[in-house]
Amino acid sequence: MFVCAHTGGYDEFTVDITDAVREFLAGGDAERFEGRVPVSIRVDNTRDLETIPSDMSDFNLYGGIYRPLNLVYVPAYHIDGVRIDAAVDAAGAAGQLTLYVSTAGTPPAADPVGEITPVGNPSAATARPATQSYDTQPAGNVVSAASPASGPANGSGTVTVSDEPARQGHASAPTPEVPYTAADLSAAALHIRITAPDGTVVYDAEKAAGGTGFGEVLTIPVASPSLWSPDAPSLYGLTLTLKSGAGEHTVTDRFGFRSFEFTERGPFLLNGERLLLKGVHRHEDHAGVGAAMTDEMVSLEMRQIKEMGANFIRLGHYQQSRLVLGLCDELGILVWEEIPWCRGGLGGEQYREQGRRMLRNMISQHRNHPSVILWGLGNENDWPGDFPEFDREAIRAYMKELHDLSHELDPSRLTAIRRCGFCEDIVDVYSPSIWAGWYKGAYVDYQNAAHAEMLGTDRFLHVEWGADSHPGRYSEDPHRDITYSPEPPRAETVPGQPVYTEGPNNSTVGDWSETYAAELIDWTLGRQHDMPWLTGSAYWSFKDFSTPLRPENPVPYVNQKGLVERDGTPKEAYYIFQSYWAVEPMVRIFGHGWRVRWGEPGEVKRLLVYSNCDEAELFLNGESLGVKQRVEGDFPANGLRWDTPLREGENYLRAVARRGGTVIGDEVRFEYTTARWGEPARLAVTAYPADGDAVWIEARLLDRDGVQCHDARDYINFELAGDGRLVRYQGTASGSHIMQAHNGWARIKVETDGGVSVIAVRSEGLPTAFVTIGE
Amino acid sequence: MFVCAHTGGYDEFTVDITDAVREFLAGGDAERFEGRVPVSIRVDNTRDLETIPSDMSDFNLYGGIYRPLNLVYVPAYHIDGVRIDAAVDAAGAAGQLTLYVSTAGTPPAADPVGEITPVGNPSAATARPATQSYDTQPAGNVVSAASPASGPANGSGTVTVSDEPARQGHASAPTPEVPYTAADLSAAALHIRITAPDGTVVYDAEKAAGGTGFGEVLTIPVASPSLWSPDAPSLYGLTLTLKSGAGEHTVTDRFGFRSFEFTERGPFLLNGERLLLKGVHRHEDHAGVGAAMTDEMVSLEMRQIKEMGANFIRLGHYQQSRLVLGLCDELGILVWEEIPWCRGGLGGEQYREQGRRMLRNMISQHRNHPSVILWGLGNENDWPGDFPEFDREAIRAYMKELHDLSHELDPSRLTAIRRCGFCEDIVDVYSPSIWAGWYKGAYVDYQNAAHAEMLGTDRFLHVEWGADSHPGRYSEDPHRDITYSPEPPRAETVPGQPVYTEGPNNSTVGDWSETYAAELIDWTLGRQHDMPWLTGSAYWSFKDFSTPLRPENPVPYVNQKGLVERDGTPKEAYYIFQSYWAVEPMVRIFGHGWRVRWGEPGEVKRLLVYSNCDEAELFLNGESLGVKQRVEGDFPANGLRWDTPLREGENYLRAVARRGGTVIGDEVRFEYTTARWGEPARLAVTAYPADGDAVWIEARLLDRDGVQCHDARDYINFELAGDGRLVRYQGTASGSHIMQAHNGWARIKVETDGGVSVIAVRSEGLPTAFVTIGE
Repeated sequence: MFVCAHTGGYDEFTVDITDAVREFLAGGDAERFEGRVPVSIRVDNTRDLETIPSDMSDFNLYGGIYRPLNLVYVPAYHIDGVRIDAAVDAAGAAGQLTLYVSTAGTPPAADPVGEITPVGNPSAATARPATQSYDTQPAGNVVSAASPASGPANGSGTVTVSDEPARQGHASAPTPEVPYTAADLSAAALHIRITAPDGTVVYDAEKAAGGTGFGEVLTIPVASPSLWSPDAPSLYGLTLTLKSGAGEHTVTDRFGFRSFEFTERGPFLLNGERLLLKGVHRHEDHAGVGAAMTDEMVSLEMRQIKEMGANFIRLGHYQQSRLVLGLCDELGILVWEEIPWCRGGLGGEQYREQGRRMLRNMISQHRNHPSVILWGLGNENDWPGDFPEFDREAIRAYMKELHDLSHELDPSRLTAIRRCGFCEDIVDVYSPSIWAGWYKGAYVDYQNAAHAEMLGTDRFLHVEWGADSHPGRYSEDPHRDITYSPEPPRAETVPGQPVYTEGPNNSTVGDWSETYAAELIDWTLGRQHDMPWLTGSAYWSFKDFSTPLRPENPVPYVNQKGLVERDGTPKEAYYIFQSYWAVEPMVRIFGHGWRVRWGEPGEVKRLLVYSNCDEAELFLNGESLGVKQRVEGDFPANGLRWDTPLREGENYLRAVARRGGTVIGDEVRFEYTTARWGEPARLAVTAYPADGDAVWIEARLLDRDGVQCHDARDYINFELAGDGRLVRYQGTASGSHIMQAHNGWARIKVETDGGVSVIAVRSEGLPTAFVTIGE
Repeated sequence: MFVCAHTGGYDEFTVDITDAVREFLAGGDAERFEGRVPVSIRVDNTRDLETIPSDMSDFNLYGGIYRPLNLVYVPAYHIDGVRIDAAVDAAGAAGQLTLYVSTAGTPPAADPVGEITPVGNPSAATARPATQSYDTQPAGNVVSAASPASGPANGSGTVTVSDEPARQGHASAPTPEVPYTAADLSAAALHIRITAPDGTVVYDAEKAAGGTGFGEVLTIPVASPSLWSPDAPSLYGLTLTLKSGAGEHTVTDRFGFRSFEFTERGPFLLNGERLLLKGVHRHEDHAGVGAAMTDEMVSLEMRQIKEMGANFIRLGHYQQSRLVLGLCDELGILVWEEIPWCRGGLGGEQYREQGRRMLRNMISQHRNHPSVILWGLGNENDWPGDFPEFDREAIRAYMKELHDLSHELDPSRLTAIRRCGFCEDIVDVYSPSIWAGWYKGAYVDYQNAAHAEMLGTDRFLHVEWGADSHPGRYSEDPHRDITYSPEPPRAETVPGQPVYTEGPNNSTVGDWSETYAAELIDWTLGRQHDMPWLTGSAYWSFKDFSTPLRPENPVPYVNQKGLVERDGTPKEAYYIFQSYWAVEPMVRIFGHGWRVRWGEPGEVKRLLVYSNCDEAELFLNGESLGVKQRVEGDFPANGLRWDTPLREGENYLRAVARRGGTVIGDEVRFEYTTARWGEPARLAVTAYPADGDAVWIEARLLDRDGVQCHDARDYINFELAGDGRLVRYQGTASGSHIMQAHNGWARIKVETDGGVSVIAVRSEGLPTAFVTIGE
């Protein structure tokens, strides 16, 4: 029998299947299933213009169920929602905690439990009728914490199926709003226990409970609370236990005290002090699994983000899993979370109601997380295409409606959008589109462009900037194919006026090297540290991710702007961010993946070291090139650069960095060649061991004299016939069977399965090369 | 600007884009397109339960535009529909022709042309108000015949985009019904010219015309018309020219006179005489092109069907192109055409309206074809699955509605469905499901099963019977894995009682050999010739076709019941049909593709010759095995069979058949082996030339002693790495990279592209084999 449907994806939903199970067990089909209860969930991500997000979005809209789905047993009378309002003044002295609890099911009439005096220091709880209610069941706080106190076997339990859906088609019916009144307070007891971040129990009380619906159960002052911040993400603990004749039901949650402010045309303040928001973006996407990342993968990724030094994240462009939000709370990463109203315009009432519903659900499900500061209402809503009409006034009106709804539901957060100029006056915080050095202009224009944009909006935040880079591709001159005016962006000082690219920009004719991305990032981060009015920024994007667009990319169908590859492998850029933002001392010589550098004999080459230490010393082939002091903003590499000739053949670099008494190091080996090469004339293919019984197949583009073409970017195609399997479709620079050469080379891994395989390597216009493995 | 949408696919539609073109040319975009007018058509075959046919159907629902799409210029006042009612009494003596013409556009007021006396023998035309009207523009008769008498250049023309869509999303708005009244008859002239099948002009007149709408323009008696029949498909010609100040518009069509009757529980009569309907089915599907068959492919296929001896076809399961119907008219093939209400149940109002619309369109677009005798309303409508509810009464009511609509629109044809037992009383002609020897029972049960079914319905017709066969697979004992009771179906006489298969049936555990399919077909055709009450049958299906179901077939995702392969290559079964049905003398030794027969030394083997000649003589290795007379119904091969030992090694068969003074022959070479083999232990792979620069790659399954396993059916997988290309996805037994071995062998063609390729051949459990070509 049909139980429920949900349209939306990304937001959680819970549905009570108790009655359906009872009906099934009483019906004629039960015998056929031998007493087991079949539960089926059908999902559908067929393109539908009247759903969000638009298929015009630059990320894959995955199908299927890829977040946890739980079958939960709760007592017939249980907690189904908790709202925690933890407020504190800007000085951090006067906090207040207000707790709302929603119960559902049948409250038994027997054995009322009287109110019990709290044992902690806060004042006693006060019950009063609910002033707010959830639109749908806030499953987020119920499901995973529910105790299997009773099951359907005893006939008194409630069975709930819950999941964190994405691209799905089921929704629970809204819980009817039943005021929580004094008349109901006779049937059960609610035990409330609060622990401070250090584990101390600060409140422990049991009070009468009963009835169903949503109600405020506690409002207490909290003097000088332990404040939550990126540096010290202090979390209080909450344990609620509802005791009744139906059984005990325990729910746990966490909360934190912090204040924040986006000052007008000024910086961002957290707990009354300026904090530069150092952010990235995150999509749900990973090599080999798409959106279906395991908890371990998610946790590892969030830790990578923290270790990069980020204190802010924009979860683009949809509600993410409770696990992500929980990690942001624990790790100290402030959050902009948004609904997937992204590109294509504005649909009809079904479309709009989905947007409202997803905003309500996101807020009700994630509002207890202290990390959240911004509710995002949309992205690139100035991008038409899904509907014949594109009505700016209708988009403005709907944006205003969402803005008002967000404030009504949660006055403690601000609203935000990115790139919809004709709506910037509606939301609290606005990010324009600034892609200096990539889609428009040169990177040296960054500071001027951002400053001009800041002046035009009340609360400016810069999300989405960066550059694509093909991991493993390096360049001696990444500006070769760009014409700048009036001066090239490699200038080491801020120019007085904008620098334009003439004709095509870097995204279209640039070499997509790690070298160029490193320059752009190094320049931009250096400027951001010198913009006292800047609230912050978020780099797009932390990780390479798959998209239905961009088939022509070096790794086709992958947006390659990530700081790490799609499998989490850091690119050079990751370490540049660390050199600006990370807390722990680090040092990294630029070019770990740069196998061969090239130039004239005796030509002076620049060597870069990225570090957050006070000074660094670089050794070339065992000889010191001298100690350099780190000077923030001295481009490139904050002054940690050495100009020197290299020797033909192998060179060996070692860097030593010092901060106080801490000494750390890094080293790199590479070749230097003065050979010159012509056009690629043939492919050389070699096989060498990888992990396990896997083998790397590496192809190199050689000219007719056999010299490797170190700047060749031709597409290379790997094909396999035989027992093995190409490790492809990973969306990484070595996990795709078709990709552009990095520096005249490309490789792919083959899982041999212990058998024989022939691999053909093809590149347009060249003879196909073959290699046999496993013979 | 949006012009129109059409939901349906399969049926034609026409839309007048004149106003849209004018608006575009006057608008701001015209300059950007440099005076050219962009016309775009977007099609969508997203799964939608509320459209027919169901995705549960056993055939591919192709997307895209695969039938002709024409941009047609017609004068501003033009003919947009012609209906020809050509009736004749059962004796063929008294015919009557009634002609209805629909005009559209603006009739100019100038220069009325008076009525002119006809020059032929029929009586003068009579105009009277229309009694019927088309629901939508009957594009079928307008577009291809329209003359480019005037174009948009002179500002007075009409531009029409028309196509024969399938799986598309556009529809013309219905033409408003405007009665054709005498007041309109002053503006233009309609010239009517009719030719007899021999080319003689039998009617030639010009009459006043004018106004718009649909009207009868001519009703004339036709004494002793030249009758249309499969043997003599006599077609009359019609040329209509509308002359007005807007220009001349000429439309041509054809028609024929024939009567038919499905007698109750008795035979089918055409023109008053019994005709056994000898039918097949046709899908729009072909190797390499899917549904997008060229006109040449369609024409060749229809001629193959005619040369097989068929006089009847069921176009399953949707309206097919005007080309197909025109060929049926020309070749003399009676037609059951149907709407795609196929499987899944019954949807809501949108679904039902689509069914009605497609029935109206099919009838209005194809009613002039004399070949059509049955309008099919559905197929397997007892097959639930698309909707939670399956309501037999609702299905009955809708079936009745369609039945009544068909009769209302076209009283001259009957309605029909196949397999929906609870609706058999509703339609005029009913086919139950009888698959004796394949899905149910043994083929020797055919006659009894059909007879029992015939008794239960008023007008019985047997469509869909047959067996899958993997082309190139032969068997010395196709019944080896089947258990029959009480006696095996190889019995040469009709048994007195049903023969059941015990447990699995032939479709699940049979060997899918051409040998078995030949037996079943030979048996069934023989019985059908001995069932005087039988109206006829239609074999399922003429050609192998692709399907989203059946991934486990010998050629995966191909329904292999065809008499020819998906590329039109005849299987053995095609010739068996010819031996019963074809007019031209033919002879065919069974087993042209049977490379190796096997058995004991000296074992007596049966040799079969299929022929429609009176007698045949078979020579084995140059020595006559004697002359046999053909005895219709003497199973197998109508008595043309010889039992003889074969010699080890190559054998050579030659057959000579005689009918009157005509002598024809056939020959076959094959090997006979007495070797025994074990399980497949290895693959032997060879390459040998195919056409052009293509190469055949052939794999053979050998046991550990190197003996080929002639009954092995293991799946074989071909993979290629290098410059060449596997000729795969053809859906044929040698055009798939994964298929079952035929008789221990399989092959695939490689287009070498003049380069080097390595082909790996894999079969589960065996060492992978490799072959390199082009070195």
